[in-house]
Amino acid sequence: MLSIKKPGLVLNTGICLENIRAMAAKARNAGVAFRPHFKTHQSATIGEWFREEGVTAITVSSVSMARYFSAHGWKDITIAFPVNLPEIDEINELARKIQINLLIESVETALFLSENLKSECGFFIKIDTGYHRTGIEVSNTKLIDHVLQSTTSPLLRFKGFLTHSGNTYHAKNIDEIIHIQRFTSENLVRLKKRYLDQYPDLILSVGDTPTCSQRMPAAGINEIRPGNFVFFDVMQFALGSCKPDQIAVALVCPVVAVHPSRQEAVIYGGAIHLSKEQTMLPPDPQAIYGLAVSWDGNKWDTTQLLGKVRSLSQEHGVISLTQMGCNLKPGDLVAILPVHSCLTSHLMRSFYTLDGCIIDTMNQQ
Amino acid sequence: MLSIKKPGLVLNTGICLENIRAMAAKARNAGVAFRPHFKTHQSATIGEWFREEGVTAITVSSVSMARYFSAHGWKDITIAFPVNLPEIDEINELARKIQINLLIESVETALFLSENLKSECGFFIKIDTGYHRTGIEVSNTKLIDHVLQSTTSPLLRFKGFLTHSGNTYHAKNIDEIIHIQRFTSENLVRLKKRYLDQYPDLILSVGDTPTCSQRMPAAGINEIRPGNFVFFDVMQFALGSCKPDQIAVALVCPVVAVHPSRQEAVIYGGAIHLSKEQTMLPPDPQAIYGLAVSWDGNKWDTTQLLGKVRSLSQEHGVISLTQMGCNLKPGDLVAILPVHSCLTSHLMRSFYTLDGCIIDTMNQQ
Repeated sequence: MLSIKKPGLVLNTGICLENIRAMAAKARNAGVAFRPHFKTHQSATIGEWFREEGVTAITVSSVSMARYFSAHGWKDITIAFPVNLPEIDEINELARKIQINLLIESVETALFLSENLKSECGFFIKIDTGYHRTGIEVSNTKLIDHVLQSTTSPLLRFKGFLTHSGNTYHAKNIDEIIHIQRFTSENLVRLKKRYLDQYPDLILSVGDTPTCSQRMPAAGINEIRPGNFVFFDVMQFALGSCKPDQIAVALVCPVVAVHPSRQEAVIYGGAIHLSKEQTMLPPDPQAIYGLAVSWDGNKWDTTQLLGKVRSLSQEHGVISLTQMGCNLKPGDLVAILPVHSCLTSHLMRSFYTLDGCIIDTMNQQ
Repeated sequence: MLSIKKPGLVLNTGICLENIRAMAAKARNAGVAFRPHFKTHQSATIGEWFREEGVTAITVSSVSMARYFSAHGWKDITIAFPVNLPEIDEINELARKIQINLLIESVETALFLSENLKSECGFFIKIDTGYHRTGIEVSNTKLIDHVLQSTTSPLLRFKGFLTHSGNTYHAKNIDEIIHIQRFTSENLVRLKKRYLDQYPDLILSVGDTPTCSQRMPAAGINEIRPGNFVFFDVMQFALGSCKPDQIAVALVCPVVAVHPSRQEAVIYGGAIHLSKEQTMLPPDPQAIYGLAVSWDGNKWDTTQLLGKVRSLSQEHGVISLTQMGCNLKPGDLVAILPVHSCLTSHLMRSFYTLDGCIIDTMNQQ
């Protein structure tokens, strides 16, 4: 039995392994390369579970994360973030040892790398197909050409085009997610055709959990890079990516106060544990920061909904209770399914397994 | 010159020392005890700066934080959080060594402590004067009496009533903040009168940065516990608690992409650095996650507004640029004034001073 005295992030390894297995199998069956994003778990141990499913190439979101996984034996890493130029020394050190792929989306970055890179690196051009966070607009072939012309160093090998359709996170329903996936694929495949003569090996890399959970991408897409699916969370449940019993992590928190008159409980578990990420769970018109379910000391039970986390301060969480939650009293433990498991995992820095082992991450104290 | 390659939290110690000095002086002049909340900085080094202003008693928000500051020589600590019963062993260990004050707001907690406490502890009854996060409603003297009757152990010494008027954070203007302060004071003073015969030494403890920044509380209030003022932040600026040049911390971030067509820049600096706390800054109708100002390698300059942080992913921040920000290019550094310095400091775990020293916190890796 797990001894939890203060907020602790618990990982159901069985669910997690099944999430990994299912996504790896879907990619294999569809014939697309599976390069999972490791930013969700940031853990060498969990990384090994992917290796057991045949994964040899991964995605990370920072140079620091690439260094951590390189130190744990990963030899083919895409840093799916626009190159952070001040870290050129760290990039050179990595590129000397392993296969590193960078993301370029500007002439400035292309020129800087052409001058300063000391070992061979792959690079993708980051394409924006509608999310509008970053990347070159898919229609802007003039800038794409300019970037390609500016990567003058023979150490820079063009790998292809990469996009992240984060706009799926704002989709209202699954049809919209599938529409975004189709729109992205069509545009990328058109781009590929334009450059294929010149770069016959170029690949197309896409990936986000909402689309990859619905279906594999269309023909012509070579690689997927989903990350969140390893744990899923309430946001993915809201998007239709998973069922509640596919969520692999829960923050176990002590109840510290109850307010029967307004059907609320206060937990030790706040913004520094869950993060302030919120989501909508229709038809409920109010945003939530997590779902509280029962915890019996050994496992959580998603069929026993105790309430919804309605507000968070630094250490406090306020839960609006269901009828079933109204028996809670100070000292009881509840399990909170997080809205965004990537941010909660980052904040918590390690996981308890259900049998009480600790799994470290790169952020472990 | 500070060498910053990835998001780094920089502390202007001069501003911080002045913030501490000013609040200590205001409390001294008003004749109220100053028991600052240390959850904002969570740093033994910064704690010493308070000691130099005569502070000997502090507030924290968790047992873990109490242990950390106890280990750094603090001997009078109020844990301003409803008692977390599973940590009773840790509480007993602390209470054996130093003066600890707990917050009680339920009969269950009073009975549990009466049975399980092994060393003398002070306790406050947590009162709700309108925030409605937690605490006993100020009018519910029946429950207050019941709690007092349930603290049967002679080890439990009743210290008084404590409240946190967090509703000031939702105030629309300074008049409303002052109104909340007056309402809170009047209600607490009335409560004090009711119990003063029975408990002649009881004190009233209040504290939040928005009210304490406007003015010291009315006669009858004995102690203030503000915390955020040590750094301030954009939220406090929005509330009228400080001016931008009183904000003592900024997250220095590299620019990784620029999008001139939509006047945006992307920084390496996201939800895992700033936190997803947002605020409104009227008349701007859109929420922001921080203000980007210039960074010259040695200091930031609040008069040089480069943009507003409009959205955050795990590592990405998107800045909507001012005219002055439109010259930014990949590799440049900008300073982000955070919306909520408590959460940003917690995430970043340590500070750089302007002259390149590192100040640790309890969350340091």
